[in-house]
Amino acid sequence: MVHLSGIKAQNLTEKGVKTRMKILETAEQLIGEKGYYETSIAEITVKANIAQGTFYIYFSSKKAVFDELVYQLSSDFRYHIKIAMEKEDTFEAKQRAGFLAFFEWVTKHRNLYSIVQQAVVVDEKLYRAYYQKIAAGFITSIGKAMEAGECKSLNVETVAYCFMGVGQFIGMRWVVWRDQLVPNDVFEEAMEILFNGLTHKGGKKNWRISRTGYTNEQ
Amino acid sequence: MVHLSGIKAQNLTEKGVKTRMKILETAEQLIGEKGYYETSIAEITVKANIAQGTFYIYFSSKKAVFDELVYQLSSDFRYHIKIAMEKEDTFEAKQRAGFLAFFEWVTKHRNLYSIVQQAVVVDEKLYRAYYQKIAAGFITSIGKAMEAGECKSLNVETVAYCFMGVGQFIGMRWVVWRDQLVPNDVFEEAMEILFNGLTHKGGKKNWRISRTGYTNEQ
Repeated sequence: MVHLSGIKAQNLTEKGVKTRMKILETAEQLIGEKGYYETSIAEITVKANIAQGTFYIYFSSKKAVFDELVYQLSSDFRYHIKIAMEKEDTFEAKQRAGFLAFFEWVTKHRNLYSIVQQAVVVDEKLYRAYYQKIAAGFITSIGKAMEAGECKSLNVETVAYCFMGVGQFIGMRWVVWRDQLVPNDVFEEAMEILFNGLTHKGGKKNWRISRTGYTNEQ
Repeated sequence: MVHLSGIKAQNLTEKGVKTRMKILETAEQLIGEKGYYETSIAEITVKANIAQGTFYIYFSSKKAVFDELVYQLSSDFRYHIKIAMEKEDTFEAKQRAGFLAFFEWVTKHRNLYSIVQQAVVVDEKLYRAYYQKIAAGFITSIGKAMEAGECKSLNVETVAYCFMGVGQFIGMRWVVWRDQLVPNDVFEEAMEILFNGLTHKGGKKNWRISRTGYTNEQ
């Protein structure tokens, strides 16, 4: 279910809120499965069982529905993640709760991945803004943990994008492709990689390419 | 530059190989920037400066060009990664060299991300196959490292998707969005997260949600 933001819902009647929501839910399904360019407003209205004129009361164009869809989906899962994280105390417990909340949310919104990935050509600014907003949330929570000494002081944005990448790929592989929650052992080991590191504990090795890798040394 | 696979190139004259390559390079640019559905064969032929009839000597449809593009781009960067990894000895040095080779390759093929992400609606099987093929490479190299005791014995597929996620997101944020190589400090810290872990060294903590997270306990 797509939730309405307060600002936009406040001017609508209860019936209006429901109709607008029906349009967004139908668009979520059609654009997610068939794609933005292959979905028409006519198809959305037929499937949502509303008149084409009614569509235009709520949205000025297909692009407007798409924008709202990306905005609402993003707000919705970030809200769920926030609530889940607030229940926990430590940096690591918060992050784990956030990942779990995201994966659980995706089981009900499998088309999120497809819709967001289409934004790369439908509206690249929207696409970047989507990830930058998620990154901003990570940056805040990771930054606090660094200040509190709960995690190493690394570049907070680097850590944020590593976390986002792991979340997206684990979610893609298990939740979206398999239509199930992330198996417990997969979740635990992904967290182990992020929080405890992959290799055996020990001193840092001298990487043969670590200092020269960018100068393309042969 | 898109490289031809041997099998398909062997039936073409030298001029034919060049024409086919020109079509693929033009499609890489147009489909990457405007999108698959917004790009027509007519546009590809005009921009590539070839007759529309000539297009059909090489490809039966726009979809055939798209499939070949995903295949060629994927083969091409996996080849570069393979060469880079072969020069190194240890698991970690190989992986780092592989990441660097990928990022360097993406600076010349920034539209890879867009093209692959479009496959999620153009052809979802192709999309999954693309990632599964990359995963297979990681699984082989990580599996060998686990056997040799060079890294912890975790679920090899979990590790593979974590690595892929980190690679994709660091590449997106710095190479694709900034049009530059990944800054050295970002690269080093991303590797540190993957190989040495984010948190201070120490015993594993008791996560409050680790055992119950999947049962949705309130």
